[in-house]
Amino acid sequence: MTDAARQSPVRTGRRPGSGDTRSRVLLAARASFGELGFDGATIRHVALRAGVDPALVHHYFGSKQQLFVAAMEFPFDLPGMASRILEGPRDELGARFVRSVLGLWETPATRPLLLGLVRSATTDPVAAAMLRQLLAEGPFLALSGAIDQPDAALRATLAGSQLIGLALARYVVAVEPLASAPFEVLVDALAPTVQRYLAGDLTGAERLEGATEAGEPVP
Amino acid sequence: MTDAARQSPVRTGRRPGSGDTRSRVLLAARASFGELGFDGATIRHVALRAGVDPALVHHYFGSKQQLFVAAMEFPFDLPGMASRILEGPRDELGARFVRSVLGLWETPATRPLLLGLVRSATTDPVAAAMLRQLLAEGPFLALSGAIDQPDAALRATLAGSQLIGLALARYVVAVEPLASAPFEVLVDALAPTVQRYLAGDLTGAERLEGATEAGEPVP
Repeated sequence: MTDAARQSPVRTGRRPGSGDTRSRVLLAARASFGELGFDGATIRHVALRAGVDPALVHHYFGSKQQLFVAAMEFPFDLPGMASRILEGPRDELGARFVRSVLGLWETPATRPLLLGLVRSATTDPVAAAMLRQLLAEGPFLALSGAIDQPDAALRATLAGSQLIGLALARYVVAVEPLASAPFEVLVDALAPTVQRYLAGDLTGAERLEGATEAGEPVP
Repeated sequence: MTDAARQSPVRTGRRPGSGDTRSRVLLAARASFGELGFDGATIRHVALRAGVDPALVHHYFGSKQQLFVAAMEFPFDLPGMASRILEGPRDELGARFVRSVLGLWETPATRPLLLGLVRSATTDPVAAAMLRQLLAEGPFLALSGAIDQPDAALRATLAGSQLIGLALARYVVAVEPLASAPFEVLVDALAPTVQRYLAGDLTGAERLEGATEAGEPVP
């Protein structure tokens, strides 16, 4: 395995090395960060998993933090996802949103990446900044910004908070019955929530109106 | 500081030592686990913070894992909280739920504990089991069980998922504008979500009815 390190003439900053080895290390890194989080994963563990020498991982990617950032590069088109969610009937926006985001969690290629991000973001500042950016500026904001409603940023982050909470409960800590609930049950349960966060009333005015009709005073 | 260790005649299994010292260590442990999570916090760090010798912490509490479990003992009455949420108008259940749970996050005595639980649950199996139990069997289930609706466990965990997601976004990774949104804005935004999870329709039947009225075919 050290042969690979000896054979490839490595120059820093150019992402060198055979594409296969590099991909294998990134795949191993996603799996390790996904299982153990940033604090728990080690370069040694990633190298063992990829079947390469730890020195090679250091040489290709630098520090564990740099490896983490490289491993968390999204292998899917987030802006494209937002555009696809916006297509179709406006009152099914929430359902398309939930289906798309949960779909990423259900996909073997992306689940370890998302697990790694959530498991690391709770303690590692770089991972926290990445999750913060994903929630605040990612496809969620593109979505809520395209809807003609005030408070686009608040709407985007509210929708993100429900999805990240469901992911934490279902995939990270595996709370039942959420962990084994069928995909479509979750889409039905969450769709109206996200629909309201993105395009509905957030002020509680509807709730207060309901209270008035029931004869209760509005403060 | 070693004086304290020398002065107290410690017997294992009896939670000995002066109440003051014990409380100081638990307070320090909550703060450390809250900031760093289970993996990041150390007995040494907790001892330094409490102004005692690390050997004393080991002697009082045993392993880091045992210290964690002791530090995460809830200093508030969760069943009592569920009963109070159930009192009052049924259609404001969601608002009372959100207000109570977010209230715990806003309280200086309980926030470090909750932060410690969430920061640790993403990587530590014992903390994950504690969070799982809190979400699956805690006050949420007592609440949804008291409401005459099917799927009480699913309803409880859905409500928990929204609250834990909001807490992760607002308090753990601090996504704006959620992180600095006024308490009442969040109560208004989340109350209808939790109201529906606990007492409303989860099957998507309402959504489909809406679609039919709008002239779209129901599959």
